[in-house]
Amino acid sequence: MKKKIKKINASILIIGNEILSGRTQDKNVVFLSNWLNSSCGIIVKEVRVVPDDEKTIVENILFLSKKFNYVFTTGGIGPTHDDITAKSISKAFKVKYEYHEEAYAILEKYYGKKKFNDGRKKMAKMPKGSKLIYNPSSAAPGFITKNVLSLPGVPSILNSMIENCKRYLVKGLKIHSKTINLFTVESNISKQLSLIQKKYKKFVDIGSYPFFRLGKIGVAVVTRSTSLKKLKEVNADLMKVVKIKKIKILRL
Amino acid sequence: MKKKIKKINASILIIGNEILSGRTQDKNVVFLSNWLNSSCGIIVKEVRVVPDDEKTIVENILFLSKKFNYVFTTGGIGPTHDDITAKSISKAFKVKYEYHEEAYAILEKYYGKKKFNDGRKKMAKMPKGSKLIYNPSSAAPGFITKNVLSLPGVPSILNSMIENCKRYLVKGLKIHSKTINLFTVESNISKQLSLIQKKYKKFVDIGSYPFFRLGKIGVAVVTRSTSLKKLKEVNADLMKVVKIKKIKILRL
Repeated sequence: MKKKIKKINASILIIGNEILSGRTQDKNVVFLSNWLNSSCGIIVKEVRVVPDDEKTIVENILFLSKKFNYVFTTGGIGPTHDDITAKSISKAFKVKYEYHEEAYAILEKYYGKKKFNDGRKKMAKMPKGSKLIYNPSSAAPGFITKNVLSLPGVPSILNSMIENCKRYLVKGLKIHSKTINLFTVESNISKQLSLIQKKYKKFVDIGSYPFFRLGKIGVAVVTRSTSLKKLKEVNADLMKVVKIKKIKILRL
Repeated sequence: MKKKIKKINASILIIGNEILSGRTQDKNVVFLSNWLNSSCGIIVKEVRVVPDDEKTIVENILFLSKKFNYVFTTGGIGPTHDDITAKSISKAFKVKYEYHEEAYAILEKYYGKKKFNDGRKKMAKMPKGSKLIYNPSSAAPGFITKNVLSLPGVPSILNSMIENCKRYLVKGLKIHSKTINLFTVESNISKQLSLIQKKYKKFVDIGSYPFFRLGKIGVAVVTRSTSLKKLKEVNADLMKVVKIKKIKILRL
């Protein structure tokens, strides 16, 4: 992983009719976001889910790769007709869609020459100039094309490959986060939260999320910042509010 | 619900830092997509997840509301500083952001005059001209502004409100779907699937999804169409392939 620079962001493009139809519950966003946050200091700023449609994928690749430091795609890199991620990225960047020599060799070795049929060969076809993201669980590699990293849709396989993305990523500053769980309702602290957020606008993001636990209603106040100092200041301000309002804290 | 016309589509805009940070697993896409499919014949064509940032929300509302028949937003309609959905939609459509009389009355009655503080009053502020989507579980209504329906982010509350969206939606043709679970690998049938997909390109979507069950690898072949006749034809073609290739079917 390369040297740290300040704020690095990413977007995720989920490619797959099965997510849009409600057939499949996406699990890759939570995994990718957490990994990028904690392992790379990279913040996910936008997620899009699009169908297996070339024109739509091309448009989104072009837009997201310009707007964000990295784009992670999930899905559409298997052997069937609806796996069109590699071809669409080739079109987006106007590069050839062709066999990647090393990927071809990896897959031929994995399946054996006899069983290396056309569907499987398709998984070695990538945008020209792509570099491989190795796959320790089912061989078929992902790939990086410019700032777009393409991973499979099956969560267990994606998870097994994630550490192999690291070499291609510039690391951002660590994102610190703190959660305080309060036994109160949002409207009881909304004014104070708003004032504190204004005071630290540039440095800290404050989010508030209702929860239901132990038969009681509560609010999780989540603060996030690349500055540990500012995060501590915000949380000191929050604790003053908690004290003044005599709000009980849920300690986990 | 109004009279049926042919193909009606929708997009979902999820508003919330907590989804992007990986803190919270979204569950609303699966629920909304399934409900729109089965209850309304409406197909979800795109999903986006964006942060609690006004400029970003405005841009996305404008883009999605032009491109799709409906936009469903989730999140950002509570009482705190990070709840900016209503204000952002007002900006997008250049209408006033003001108290909705009926929503104000509902909330005042629910909380009682004494406990109806500023945070709670905020939940009655909406884009001028919005109509209410009633909330049977926690009173604070959602709203529809032009073709944009705004719902809360908490899944249990969203779920309880969904039937109240129906009156505002034009129903599309029913989307039929069939799944065949095959004990084979994708590459064994990819060529045939591709040919069948080409033959029925305009009428049926065919998706193939690997699964792992009972210690075996398999492929779920999912076909979807608004024409039951075409769906049956496609599945007859698929069964011919299954027979010729002697593939075992997993019956659930």
